[in-house]
Amino acid sequence: MKRFALIGAGFIGTVHARNLAAHPGVRFDLVADADGARARALAEKHGARPASVDAVFDDAADVDAILIASSTHTHADFVERAAKAGQAIFCEKPIDFDVERARRAGAAVVAAGVPFTIGFNRRFDASHRAVKRAVAAGEVGKVEIVQLTSRGPEAPPIDYVKVSGGQMRDQTIHFLDLLRWLTADEPVEVHAMGAALVDPAIGEAGDVDTSLVSLRMRSGALCQIDCSRRTAYGYDERVEVFGSAGAAESRRQRYRSMSLYQGDKVIEDGLHAGWFERVEATYYDALDAFVRHLEGEEEVDLPSLDDGLKAQLIADAATCSLQTGQPVRIDVACGTGGDR
Amino acid sequence: MKRFALIGAGFIGTVHARNLAAHPGVRFDLVADADGARARALAEKHGARPASVDAVFDDAADVDAILIASSTHTHADFVERAAKAGQAIFCEKPIDFDVERARRAGAAVVAAGVPFTIGFNRRFDASHRAVKRAVAAGEVGKVEIVQLTSRGPEAPPIDYVKVSGGQMRDQTIHFLDLLRWLTADEPVEVHAMGAALVDPAIGEAGDVDTSLVSLRMRSGALCQIDCSRRTAYGYDERVEVFGSAGAAESRRQRYRSMSLYQGDKVIEDGLHAGWFERVEATYYDALDAFVRHLEGEEEVDLPSLDDGLKAQLIADAATCSLQTGQPVRIDVACGTGGDR
Amino acid sequence: MKRFALIGAGFIGTVHARNLAAHPGVRFDLVADADGARARALAEKHGARPASVDAVFDDAADVDAILIASSTHTHADFVERAAKAGQAIFCEKPIDFDVERARRAGAAVVAAGVPFTIGFNRRFDASHRAVKRAVAAGEVGKVEIVQLTSRGPEAPPIDYVKVSGGQMRDQTIHFLDLLRWLTADEPVEVHAMGAALVDPAIGEAGDVDTSLVSLRMRSGALCQIDCSRRTAYGYDERVEVFGSAGAAESRRQRYRSMSLYQGDKVIEDGLHAGWFERVEATYYDALDAFVRHLEGEEEVDLPSLDDGLKAQLIADAATCSLQTGQPVRIDVACGTGGDR
Amino acid sequence: MKRFALIGAGFIGTVHARNLAAHPGVRFDLVADADGARARALAEKHGARPASVDAVFDDAADVDAILIASSTHTHADFVERAAKAGQAIFCEKPIDFDVERARRAGAAVVAAGVPFTIGFNRRFDASHRAVKRAVAAGEVGKVEIVQLTSRGPEAPPIDYVKVSGGQMRDQTIHFLDLLRWLTADEPVEVHAMGAALVDPAIGEAGDVDTSLVSLRMRSGALCQIDCSRRTAYGYDERVEVFGSAGAAESRRQRYRSMSLYQGDKVIEDGLHAGWFERVEATYYDALDAFVRHLEGEEEVDLPSLDDGLKAQLIADAATCSLQTGQPVRIDVACGTGGDR
Repeated sequence: MKRFALIGAGFIGTVHARNLAAHPGVRFDLVADADGARARALAEKHGARPASVDAVFDDAADVDAILIASSTHTHADFVERAAKAGQAIFCEKPIDFDVERARRAGAAVVAAGVPFTIGFNRRFDASHRAVKRAVAAGEVGKVEIVQLTSRGPEAPPIDYVKVSGGQMRDQTIHFLDLLRWLTADEPVEVHAMGAALVDPAIGEAGDVDTSLVSLRMRSGALCQIDCSRRTAYGYDERVEVFGSAGAAESRRQRYRSMSLYQGDKVIEDGLHAGWFERVEATYYDALDAFVRHLEGEEEVDLPSLDDGLKAQLIADAATCSLQTGQPVRIDVACGTGGDR
Repeated sequence: MKRFALIGAGFIGTVHARNLAAHPGVRFDLVADADGARARALAEKHGARPASVDAVFDDAADVDAILIASSTHTHADFVERAAKAGQAIFCEKPIDFDVERARRAGAAVVAAGVPFTIGFNRRFDASHRAVKRAVAAGEVGKVEIVQLTSRGPEAPPIDYVKVSGGQMRDQTIHFLDLLRWLTADEPVEVHAMGAALVDPAIGEAGDVDTSLVSLRMRSGALCQIDCSRRTAYGYDERVEVFGSAGAAESRRQRYRSMSLYQGDKVIEDGLHAGWFERVEATYYDALDAFVRHLEGEEEVDLPSLDDGLKAQLIADAATCSLQTGQPVRIDVACGTGGDR
Repeated sequence: MKRFALIGAGFIGTVHARNLAAHPGVRFDLVADADGARARALAEKHGARPASVDAVFDDAADVDAILIASSTHTHADFVERAAKAGQAIFCEKPIDFDVERARRAGAAVVAAGVPFTIGFNRRFDASHRAVKRAVAAGEVGKVEIVQLTSRGPEAPPIDYVKVSGGQMRDQTIHFLDLLRWLTADEPVEVHAMGAALVDPAIGEAGDVDTSLVSLRMRSGALCQIDCSRRTAYGYDERVEVFGSAGAAESRRQRYRSMSLYQGDKVIEDGLHAGWFERVEATYYDALDAFVRHLEGEEEVDLPSLDDGLKAQLIADAATCSLQTGQPVRIDVACGTGGDR
Repeated sequence: MKRFALIGAGFIGTVHARNLAAHPGVRFDLVADADGARARALAEKHGARPASVDAVFDDAADVDAILIASSTHTHADFVERAAKAGQAIFCEKPIDFDVERARRAGAAVVAAGVPFTIGFNRRFDASHRAVKRAVAAGEVGKVEIVQLTSRGPEAPPIDYVKVSGGQMRDQTIHFLDLLRWLTADEPVEVHAMGAALVDPAIGEAGDVDTSLVSLRMRSGALCQIDCSRRTAYGYDERVEVFGSAGAAESRRQRYRSMSLYQGDKVIEDGLHAGWFERVEATYYDALDAFVRHLEGEEEVDLPSLDDGLKAQLIADAATCSLQTGQPVRIDVACGTGGDR
């Protein structure tokens, strides 16, 4: 039984709280939030105790692990404090939009030697994992083309867009991580093409809402990612790995299974209304993997510190390509590359 | 907030306990079970208190509703005691294998005027409900053919089979209820054909494990139900309503969404491993409907006392047809018919 | 190159004519029809010659094979004349509605020793054949349940219905044949339940347009067939064989592959508009199998004389069950059984 | 009845011959081929006459239309000769790999005022047309992302690759045309990324066998095309148009409809073995549209001379991007742009 403290009682914090309460291997102890009332309400709901942020890092708290689900700008600081306190860390992505800042926090984690994982929850999607296993088992042979699609049902509020780091760092990054994970390979070149087709305000903010990213992998494989901030038909996510011996696909998912046959049409239930409905189960599975890791299970496939940083570097390079219109080599991506 | 007591801490009791704990409108107070240790363990897990069976019906318990998930032979007695105590009742099906005994218990419920529902959880399957809504909205026109399939992954232990009342009363009954609910109609004639193809011991016990049931409805519509106790490919449930204007179907469901393209085949993830994985969500939704009813929401579509009895009468008639090889009129089914 | 004469230049004759003209192993020589002008037009279109019915059976015609696609009441006579002429015979089903008459014609075929096949074209459906092969290869294990669905888009004209022999002999019979072929087994008992739900005139004519047929096979397997004369969504045919090791299905087919994602729905192209669009390819494949048989290829899986008679006997038994409401043993079906 | 001459009796010529023979509005008169024996055999098979190439352009031939299916390097010349002879022209793509040469031949067609179409047969795929109609009808709203996939089952022989003009001009070009047609829009920028992953010899020949093409349309919409010369699972073609109001998709197609349920898998029939099996029907439909146009039907949607040239210009630009690694503006694509 691992004792957990949760920092952040907003939407994602609430999701994590529910899973912490349900997990048989977790004792859900503390909840902290900049908004004390919010922390109290969430703690009460799940039989945990509210605490100040300082208190969760205190030895007296006696927690084994911190789940950081607060605002992005606080992550790096909390990661360093948890590392110093010798606590295991589950941090929502990213550690910091600034890769250098993230790297410093990461260095603290490495120095402290505490367990760490980053919230790339899509790696825990059951169907994506099945694709990963098929690829790893050689079922598709040598990987040649990867196709990833992510289209969210509606654009976030413009205020969020402005601080989100841009579509590459906010939305595409999940798929940049999936790409690395699915292929066990690294991209070496990226070209991005984008536009603000959904909301002109996004374009005025210097961002795009519709984009295509092409990547060349070290192995020679090619990858395509298309992202949109808005569909008229729910949340659309699809993963495909094509190789010399076959192709593995994690298909679009339907929220229900009704078909209506009328005239020359079959009208079927469509996609999940939102990204959350589609990926909800991945949050529990990500937590479960982390707990199993803490309990000493070997070979748990967890997104690492390095995974978090590498996805950011690729997203930075893609952003650079988007801005310059030119292909970008990833290891020198706009000068941010380094010791990866 | 409605205060609930749960009787029965076995497999289904445990499922109900989890949902009672999770439901925002429920205060999950008491757990009783013939096995006190089992009751204690389940209560502790969810922050409820263990209690004796007598205690849950005591005024002092101050519970609003009883969820009866104990052994079938205890249901009728507990229903009567809860009715007497003025408690709302959610009773797993059936009230009693003996329709007369069930009817007496039902009479007590009616006399007491307490809210009651029977655990026909399949009515709460999201896709089946979508079919029901399509039919009720006239999307398929006048109903002409209903096809229902239920094939479980493995035959229950022979000891269970012997006390189960037979395939009609144990497995098919859920679909007899679905039939009545989907069509808002009543069957008037039934013919059943069955065999023990899976396990000869089932045949020796006088039961079948593979069966076809044909029914004629009052409206003239025809219905087919096929049931098997064992598949080699997981749990297979399908509902289809065909009518003059179209057909609505709740399709077979897959447990995951991976496809592997190789050679001239596409290998996809198959069906849920078991019936429980397939219908798990229906238990919460059935409880939720009951709670909404208790809270005064109107027009909640709940399986009633009468629904429980009628499905039993049809199952009895089907059993009679199975035994005699003859079609059976349902209102005089083997002498069990009555005041329906 | 086998020389063929075609008798019958109506709808199905026209279909056969097109295939005879296209088949590389066929020399399409003669066309006869009660309506000489119709024969001439069809012959001209395909470079064949019109002929009188008498002429096609004349030695001078020098044809190797006769394809009989004329009115049903003429089949038995033409079969006997072709047999006498030593010609190979491809006869549309049935030989005659009267099994005794059909049997006499069959005896002439046997006596003459000429090659013969009956037009059970659904056996040549590519997907149905794939099911057959899977079953024969043991992929589904011991067969336990067979489900067959046939729903035509619109009821035939009442005048046709009156002379069609009834739904069992006209529509269901194709699936009675598929059942025997798919399982390599024989039904021993049948129960049919039907109604005239589509068109009251069909009921007044003593027939049904909507029916369920349940059959018990010699092996113990059970079979369900549902037939309707009218859908609101095109032609719906489905075949499924369920067994101890799995299930094989020939799915409903869509006429096109477009999907439209809008809101919470996916609107897909539906089923083929009519039975002919769905099964058109089977006519060529049936002819091709017959030609390969004539050319001496061994192990061609052709529907035989006996297959035609047996399907009729089962259809007769099903009709008897429909009329009496009682299950019927097939070997004594209403006194028509015999030396099968 | 339009009189046709066919030039070219190779694989595609044979396909056209079959359709010319079957089409009710066509009188299939002449077949010419550099290989006279081949022309004779094909003519004989379909009741046409063999002829020299010179003869088909002779007034004496009295043909209304020429179908040019000979080697690519002969197309431009034959187009000019047919134009001069006042014959309608159905020319397999491309007119010439050299856009200037193609343009000159096109000018001759325009000068002669003869009907002309180019063999972009994929426009006639029933499901692609359904997508086109949905887009044109506004069902997907404003187009934002187009995704096109073309993966052939096996790489062509290296000798063919060397004269094919490269993957962009040989394979991708069909989808560049589909893109223009589906969107009624023009690309203004292209970026291509490719590699020889299938066969190193293709790389040595300066070509790629696996590629991603990204295009920006005049309207702002973005398009992705992925092409591979070899799959391990048949021919894979998919078309999707995503817009502000929905998405329309022409799905991957299966060659048969059998499903086998075993264990936790469903094994289904896969894709068509080859591109030809997948698109065979489009050849007839393309011919049919051309004949309807010749017969005076208005608003027949035929690929035009200009369509052929524009697709080539885009393919040239994509090839240029592939070679330089840089995005290319299409109107000045490597200096080939012009009066489009």
